[in-house]
Amino acid sequence: MRIIKTIAQTKRLIERVKKSGKTIGFVPTMGYLHEGHLSLVRIARRKSQFVVVSIFVNPTQFGPSEDLAKYPQDMKRDAALLKKENVDLIFYPSVNEIYPPDYKTYVYVKELSRLMCGITRPHHFQGVTTVVLNLFNIVKPDIAVFGAKDYQQGVIIKRMTKDLNLDIKIVLGKIIREKDGLAMSSRNIYLSPRHRKNAIVLYQAVRRIRHDFRQGFSDPKRAKTMMRQMIEKKNGRIDYIAVVNKNTLSPVKKLGAGTLIALAVFFGKTRLIDNTIL
Amino acid sequence: MRIIKTIAQTKRLIERVKKSGKTIGFVPTMGYLHEGHLSLVRIARRKSQFVVVSIFVNPTQFGPSEDLAKYPQDMKRDAALLKKENVDLIFYPSVNEIYPPDYKTYVYVKELSRLMCGITRPHHFQGVTTVVLNLFNIVKPDIAVFGAKDYQQGVIIKRMTKDLNLDIKIVLGKIIREKDGLAMSSRNIYLSPRHRKNAIVLYQAVRRIRHDFRQGFSDPKRAKTMMRQMIEKKNGRIDYIAVVNKNTLSPVKKLGAGTLIALAVFFGKTRLIDNTIL
Repeated sequence: MRIIKTIAQTKRLIERVKKSGKTIGFVPTMGYLHEGHLSLVRIARRKSQFVVVSIFVNPTQFGPSEDLAKYPQDMKRDAALLKKENVDLIFYPSVNEIYPPDYKTYVYVKELSRLMCGITRPHHFQGVTTVVLNLFNIVKPDIAVFGAKDYQQGVIIKRMTKDLNLDIKIVLGKIIREKDGLAMSSRNIYLSPRHRKNAIVLYQAVRRIRHDFRQGFSDPKRAKTMMRQMIEKKNGRIDYIAVVNKNTLSPVKKLGAGTLIALAVFFGKTRLIDNTIL
Repeated sequence: MRIIKTIAQTKRLIERVKKSGKTIGFVPTMGYLHEGHLSLVRIARRKSQFVVVSIFVNPTQFGPSEDLAKYPQDMKRDAALLKKENVDLIFYPSVNEIYPPDYKTYVYVKELSRLMCGITRPHHFQGVTTVVLNLFNIVKPDIAVFGAKDYQQGVIIKRMTKDLNLDIKIVLGKIIREKDGLAMSSRNIYLSPRHRKNAIVLYQAVRRIRHDFRQGFSDPKRAKTMMRQMIEKKNGRIDYIAVVNKNTLSPVKKLGAGTLIALAVFFGKTRLIDNTIL
């Protein structure tokens, strides 16, 4: 496994890999890896012959009052974990390597980036699409794997990839959960023990709706009210609860197959997200 | 020479060309070709082994009150001209092919896109960078050739290409002029005979400053005043006159080597641009 910090060296290696005829699988991450990330790496490993993982805490996807400065990092541990997964290359650039002082180019996906997480994080998805396109152009993957916890991100990246005619297959790996159901996230370490315990209500809420849907329940408004009540009982501060079409992210009038139930909730200062698809 | 209208077919051909080891040169155009375009095609022909010209009147780079609907087109004539230049492929997509109804992805280069032409055409360069990135991803050129008449466009596309880590060399071909000095443009046909005659003042103005600079003149403010007076005497309505650094597009305090003198002037409803570099 190689660890490369520069774009130029990475491009040279990727060119050699391409010439050898190997397919490239790519998992972009912000590091501080957990089983969720590793499950994506395993998908890339299974579906391609050369696996690249990037570790880059991308400043442009954080808002001014968000947790960029304290975002957790542990490169040594990350490298050890990725080595075990037979990753071929870790691309580990500095902020200056991706965004030199004269950097000026941004990519955004309109409408989809303004909904749900985009309401309280208006520049978040522009930061994501910009860095992902940048990384795609460096790594030139045949497939790229993203986590389904960030479901809206997945929809937006698929849209960008299609609109910009990139020859990359976007794969969403399923949400990996702790034993009690909390979706794995690098941000879970921020939670106090009390918040950590209450936070499982995100999963309980979406699971409850999924369960009721299977029993014939179909009212999106009541679904939202039920989830809101469950979460507020656990002192979660709701950012949003969305009951939408999984492709267009537009609100649905009736729950149905392909409805995305997604939510973002604060516990203390920590914002957690979760979702399920009916 | 082939003419292809679909992205899928173009991609298949480009893949075969790449596999054969040929380098690809690309000239994106909006058609209605003149000697300026053909000079760019000749550069691409000289510098690469497979030459692609796109003909696409890109709606996203026109403002709501601009000349999209009446932009001149003559595909038959264009195809004949390009055949003579030994072009290998004309990519001639419909608007729907590039921007299907669910299209949502845009690319912009901040700051540089807001200056000069960007002041009165605030969405113009976003439209340009979006379509150019789109075309780059389809045609996958090794070099792409743009005209120096649209100098700001060239600066912006170079910036985008570098920022997004595209492996494409951007070449600017020099301005091609009519015998009397008017820079060639597909829009020149809009000019009434009187406006056509007066329009040569754009070239006369920038040439005058270049001449005076060589004689030791160096005051940007006076340069602008002199140009303004020359143009207004010919009933041109000035959009802007810029005396700026050719790379950063920031105003200079003193004329020097590398200063860009650029202007946009209306004659009737027709907006013309010209420039020179000291």
